[in-house]
Amino acid sequence: MTIQHRKDEHIELVLKRNVTSRNLTTGFENYRFLHCALPEINFSDISLTATFLGKKLKAPLLISSMTGGTKRTGEINKNMALAAEERGWAMGLGSMRVALEYPESRSTFQVRKYAPTIPIFANLGAVQLNYGYGMDHCRQIVELAEADALVLHLNSLQEVFQPEGNTRFAGLLKKIERLCNKLEIPIGVKEVGWGIDGKLAEQLISIGVSFIDVAGAGGTSWSQVEKYRTSHPLLKQAAESFSDWGIPTAECMMDVKRRVPYALLIASGGLSSGIDAAKAIALGARLAGYGRSLLKSAVEPTPEHIINHLTLIELELKIAMFGIGVSDIQGLQKTDRLIPSLRGD
Amino acid sequence: MTIQHRKDEHIELVLKRNVTSRNLTTGFENYRFLHCALPEINFSDISLTATFLGKKLKAPLLISSMTGGTKRTGEINKNMALAAEERGWAMGLGSMRVALEYPESRSTFQVRKYAPTIPIFANLGAVQLNYGYGMDHCRQIVELAEADALVLHLNSLQEVFQPEGNTRFAGLLKKIERLCNKLEIPIGVKEVGWGIDGKLAEQLISIGVSFIDVAGAGGTSWSQVEKYRTSHPLLKQAAESFSDWGIPTAECMMDVKRRVPYALLIASGGLSSGIDAAKAIALGARLAGYGRSLLKSAVEPTPEHIINHLTLIELELKIAMFGIGVSDIQGLQKTDRLIPSLRGD
Amino acid sequence: MTIQHRKDEHIELVLKRNVTSRNLTTGFENYRFLHCALPEINFSDISLTATFLGKKLKAPLLISSMTGGTKRTGEINKNMALAAEERGWAMGLGSMRVALEYPESRSTFQVRKYAPTIPIFANLGAVQLNYGYGMDHCRQIVELAEADALVLHLNSLQEVFQPEGNTRFAGLLKKIERLCNKLEIPIGVKEVGWGIDGKLAEQLISIGVSFIDVAGAGGTSWSQVEKYRTSHPLLKQAAESFSDWGIPTAECMMDVKRRVPYALLIASGGLSSGIDAAKAIALGARLAGYGRSLLKSAVEPTPEHIINHLTLIELELKIAMFGIGVSDIQGLQKTDRLIPSLRGD
Amino acid sequence: MTIQHRKDEHIELVLKRNVTSRNLTTGFENYRFLHCALPEINFSDISLTATFLGKKLKAPLLISSMTGGTKRTGEINKNMALAAEERGWAMGLGSMRVALEYPESRSTFQVRKYAPTIPIFANLGAVQLNYGYGMDHCRQIVELAEADALVLHLNSLQEVFQPEGNTRFAGLLKKIERLCNKLEIPIGVKEVGWGIDGKLAEQLISIGVSFIDVAGAGGTSWSQVEKYRTSHPLLKQAAESFSDWGIPTAECMMDVKRRVPYALLIASGGLSSGIDAAKAIALGARLAGYGRSLLKSAVEPTPEHIINHLTLIELELKIAMFGIGVSDIQGLQKTDRLIPSLRGD
Ligand SMILES: Cc1cc2nc3c(=O)[nH]c(=O)nc-3n(C[C@H](O)[C@H](O)[C@H](O)COP(=O)(O)O)c2cc1C
Ligand SMILES: Cc1cc2nc3c(=O)[nH]c(=O)nc-3n(C[C@H](O)[C@H](O)[C@H](O)COP(=O)(O)O)c2cc1C
Ligand SMILES: Cc1cc2nc3c(=O)[nH]c(=O)nc-3n(C[C@H](O)[C@H](O)[C@H](O)COP(=O)(O)O)c2cc1C
Ligand SMILES: Cc1cc2nc3c(=O)[nH]c(=O)nc-3n(C[C@H](O)[C@H](O)[C@H](O)COP(=O)(O)O)c2cc1C
Repeated sequence: MTIQHRKDEHIELVLKRNVTSRNLTTGFENYRFLHCALPEINFSDISLTATFLGKKLKAPLLISSMTGGTKRTGEINKNMALAAEERGWAMGLGSMRVALEYPESRSTFQVRKYAPTIPIFANLGAVQLNYGYGMDHCRQIVELAEADALVLHLNSLQEVFQPEGNTRFAGLLKKIERLCNKLEIPIGVKEVGWGIDGKLAEQLISIGVSFIDVAGAGGTSWSQVEKYRTSHPLLKQAAESFSDWGIPTAECMMDVKRRVPYALLIASGGLSSGIDAAKAIALGARLAGYGRSLLKSAVEPTPEHIINHLTLIELELKIAMFGIGVSDIQGLQKTDRLIPSLRGD
Repeated sequence: MTIQHRKDEHIELVLKRNVTSRNLTTGFENYRFLHCALPEINFSDISLTATFLGKKLKAPLLISSMTGGTKRTGEINKNMALAAEERGWAMGLGSMRVALEYPESRSTFQVRKYAPTIPIFANLGAVQLNYGYGMDHCRQIVELAEADALVLHLNSLQEVFQPEGNTRFAGLLKKIERLCNKLEIPIGVKEVGWGIDGKLAEQLISIGVSFIDVAGAGGTSWSQVEKYRTSHPLLKQAAESFSDWGIPTAECMMDVKRRVPYALLIASGGLSSGIDAAKAIALGARLAGYGRSLLKSAVEPTPEHIINHLTLIELELKIAMFGIGVSDIQGLQKTDRLIPSLRGD
Repeated sequence: MTIQHRKDEHIELVLKRNVTSRNLTTGFENYRFLHCALPEINFSDISLTATFLGKKLKAPLLISSMTGGTKRTGEINKNMALAAEERGWAMGLGSMRVALEYPESRSTFQVRKYAPTIPIFANLGAVQLNYGYGMDHCRQIVELAEADALVLHLNSLQEVFQPEGNTRFAGLLKKIERLCNKLEIPIGVKEVGWGIDGKLAEQLISIGVSFIDVAGAGGTSWSQVEKYRTSHPLLKQAAESFSDWGIPTAECMMDVKRRVPYALLIASGGLSSGIDAAKAIALGARLAGYGRSLLKSAVEPTPEHIINHLTLIELELKIAMFGIGVSDIQGLQKTDRLIPSLRGD
Repeated sequence: MTIQHRKDEHIELVLKRNVTSRNLTTGFENYRFLHCALPEINFSDISLTATFLGKKLKAPLLISSMTGGTKRTGEINKNMALAAEERGWAMGLGSMRVALEYPESRSTFQVRKYAPTIPIFANLGAVQLNYGYGMDHCRQIVELAEADALVLHLNSLQEVFQPEGNTRFAGLLKKIERLCNKLEIPIGVKEVGWGIDGKLAEQLISIGVSFIDVAGAGGTSWSQVEKYRTSHPLLKQAAESFSDWGIPTAECMMDVKRRVPYALLIASGGLSSGIDAAKAIALGARLAGYGRSLLKSAVEPTPEHIINHLTLIELELKIAMFGIGVSDIQGLQKTDRLIPSLRGD
């Protein structure tokens, strides 16, 4: 199976099958906002503007790293880039290893022309540093994407569940450190849906990583996705047992925030409404990222659908802010109106 | 759409559709009464009499502010007024802005002739103070209704979910304060189903508000109601996300009571049985208010149905008092037999 | 409706309709036994013998007060008496007011001939002391039943839900005290399914009551039973609201035990298996009583069915004792192997 | 009924009927692993090797004592032995009393020829020490099985639910002690699915037992199995009441570990996936045992199915270790990444 075919297959499966974790939720349902009946602000005055890595955003929101490499996924990237630019969100590209191996696929990652002003993140599996990729390749993909940052993803279990997976994860911390020291632009690290805990976040920050996207559990589960792909019967069965593995996103945020209070954080993994973003930001995130939940709108032939979807999330975020009486993102970050749910429901 | 048409539509939707909050309850189920097997009183000696704003009531109960402005809603108000007088309850009128704008609608609020002795509350959206309404208008509606008090409702989120909504809520506290200083009769403040918390209650009392109706979550959800009305697709979708927003009524009571122990309080939002009233009063309410749950009886052509409904609630309240061995409302307020439920069920 | 007809109707309803409390359980499910894998006893050595009011019992178990007064209920009493004697249980008779008012019904309570050796309890509603009944009547029914004790039942809410109910409960404590001082045999007090709490138990013991049957909630709910009987529409509806009223039996036991550790206690209300009896005894009960759950076997034409049922309960009690390695009731009373359930299920 | 017929019937029932405990789980769901996004190890370096009683194992896993005595169960034992040898697991034989009574059945336990290197456990009901069996018989079965240890099972409740059951459990501790002092090879003690608690474990270790298999509740329930077998109506009904009896396996582990931290422990009872084994080991087990969940593969005509099943469990165990970044069993035993589940689900 070619790497390109895999990319298309991932999109198909995420759209058509049940690929979310089972008996596990994001943990955002354990928090709720204490309504403020007299907000003392005008709804029209609410502002979502934010900055990330020195760039202005119209909203503290992110389209998570998802795809690229094939004709179809190139069109998805284009739609997402046009929408992100229009609404002022940040955007992540999918893993760009394919661009290094198959030059003809490169254009599918070149979305800067559709999104001249927003932060764009190039993306590579951290484990590739153990499989022959290094500084030069990283520079290449960053340039290709005209990216503001390079995001390395940690996906140990996904690799295990791919029969062709790259599962040599030893010694990566050192290699990431070297990359942080040498690369000209900021490096972020993310998971792909099982979450980053506080201890690891502390290590990553201490070796020079600029920002962390916790990419926690409760949304897309990659063991579930790969379960549908694999023809290896034992891996298929084992995948079932791991459908509730991972650290819920809200819990990642709490743990990371406790260990590295000043780290630049992105919360993602299972977010769907704008209320989720409001909770994520109140828990300490600078950006709130959406992956799978945006995909259905992003695969439409024209960008209006995904633009509408982003607008909906912003509207919900604004209403949540109106509901607790804060008029800007700084206020949301400092609110004391996010409180524990009574019984987690 | 005219304001009158909206009034009729609200009644229709509340009667015919599922408009209650989802995954959210009043919180009264977290409390239960400790049965007293030997009450040492006679059932026939139990008295529900109470006073509110100096007027005598046969029961510490309130028909919540709901409607008026059209032929149909005028008849509902008439039924409710006749029933409230018969049973000795207090009664709130729906928002009277329509009466200021459409003089022909005024008579639908003139229920004093049907209810000469009970406390009647005039009603206006607090936000209207930011849209051209002031002292004079307030006086007008109070006179029109021959009301004992003016109740201002806080409905920030309802306004957001109305495409035509009035969402400028800045600076209202000051304006309410001025009104409190000048108006000849007491001013109360209520929510419409998302609840008032302790901090805001404290502010309201400190600026001169005479009483607070917490109108908490767990009953009618106005985002749900407006969801059915709106044709704006993003608002419709956003409304779904807010179906569990708000502070459960019992929680409002606890929080407000903790912050302003001596405030005059009304508990409403999702009450249905007389046991709910008993709990509300044991939690510190002077009156317990019922909205949506009364509507089905109130829209019947003759007042017997709503009279029967009020009688049922009183009977349940009395039985609850018999069950814990208290014979009057003062005793109920002081009971130590309201205790936490084992597991909230 | 005659009092006799009511007795037959109660039996019918309890057998055929759902008359148990809703959203409320006995609380025994909050406790479980810690298995002892090496009991170090022989199953055949396990003894259930106990004493109550100086009489020997083959098992610390009681058929709760249920019936009498009509031909049919007389046969039920006969079956129960034969079974209780055969298996060595104690037995309660149903309320004997009918025997005072209708001499022809007396024989239905005269079960001593079928059960010469066991403790038998005569029974009367405590509230009758406010309706013309006194010392002499009590003596009459005790003699009639050749009873070892007189049990007064407290059933305030049942009386409320009966249109013809006797609801003057004022001043009863004093009257019970007088009875305790004068009557020649011990007086017990019980509820009928809403439970007796610690505070009341303390009062009852202090005025001379010899034993208390908590008769808690989680089993038969008399508001549910009367709901089916009444033709009064408001009472019918109100009964619905009270289907979860009352103190769960296990909670009564904990509360009463805390306040009056040395009181002689019977645990009843919702017991069905012999494991329930084991828990009740480990929580401090001297006898464990079964009402509704025995009725289906008791109404069979011959006593074998109810005898079998009692034997089953004894067998389950014995197996539970074997499971925790105690060989007699004293050991069960002192066991430290009754522990809280993990999550109440 | 012959003892052999019973053996075949047990297999049938366990395969075809619902024989697991009701409203009771292993307790492993109360624990979860905290994912480590950067494991810093290579998947291929993960080693499962372990030792037990001085013998090397390729995995710290055990096929629990299940069967033998008839033609069919002999074949099952052969399949399991071949698989255990192939995968390097330990293996327990079913109760060998039948081999003592029926010499023709002996060969069904002689699996050493199929499994020359692994630890094999001979098995006998401890209660048989009260029914004429002693040192000599134990030696006989150990020799017959060429076993590395003798495991005595405690099955008090199973015996109770067998009409023909041996229920004299008095004085066993002393007899086990004597056996421990005299027998040449180590003696282990296990339950059969209701669990061993800390207090008993402490006693067993203090009298010389070499290892304990807690065999807790949450998996096979022997009251459920015997319920299907018995024709005794009271026992059948009583069995229903005991379907949630027993100490959940994870709870046994916690309790035993607290009382005898250095004891050699096997965790079994309801394990199904390799994640369960990982949790069991992190909770302090040296081996994790699987009973009923292996049976379906073991009854297949050829050993591949059970071999595959064992391989799957190992794979899941390895993936769990990769997920928390430990590369050997010692690391797993010491991990601090096993944490309480949020809500036990
Ligand atoms: C179709 C698809 C492809 C993805 N590809 C990548 C990728 O190439 N690189 C990466 O870092 N994460 C990738 N992810 C993971 C997401 O960035 C995100 O961390 C994860 O899906 C959890 O967020 P969600 O629950 O909102 O989907 C992908 C996710 C999806 C749904
Ligand atoms: C049909 C309807 C109309 C209402 N109109 C008003 C109104 O005009 N003014 C107001 O203060 N509250 C209004 N309310 C809110 C109620 O007074 C009450 O606060 C809310 O419905 C929560 O109580 P409930 O759950 O018992 O319905 C209305 C409620 C209903 C159901
Ligand atoms: C049909 C029936 C009749 C009863 N009659 C009496 C009675 O006359 N006197 C009394 O003290 N309790 C009476 N009880 C109440 C029982 O004694 C017992 O307290 C109650 O039913 C709770 O126990 P249970 O859940 O096991 O049924 C009656 C119960 C039933 C089911
Ligand atoms: C069919 C079957 C037969 C068993 N026979 C024995 C036995 O002879 N001796 C023994 O110690 N345990 C026996 N057991 C109990 C198991 O060893 C184990 O302790 C119990 O089944 C709990 O584990 P599980 O839930 O994984 O099945 C048997 C279990 C099964 C399913």
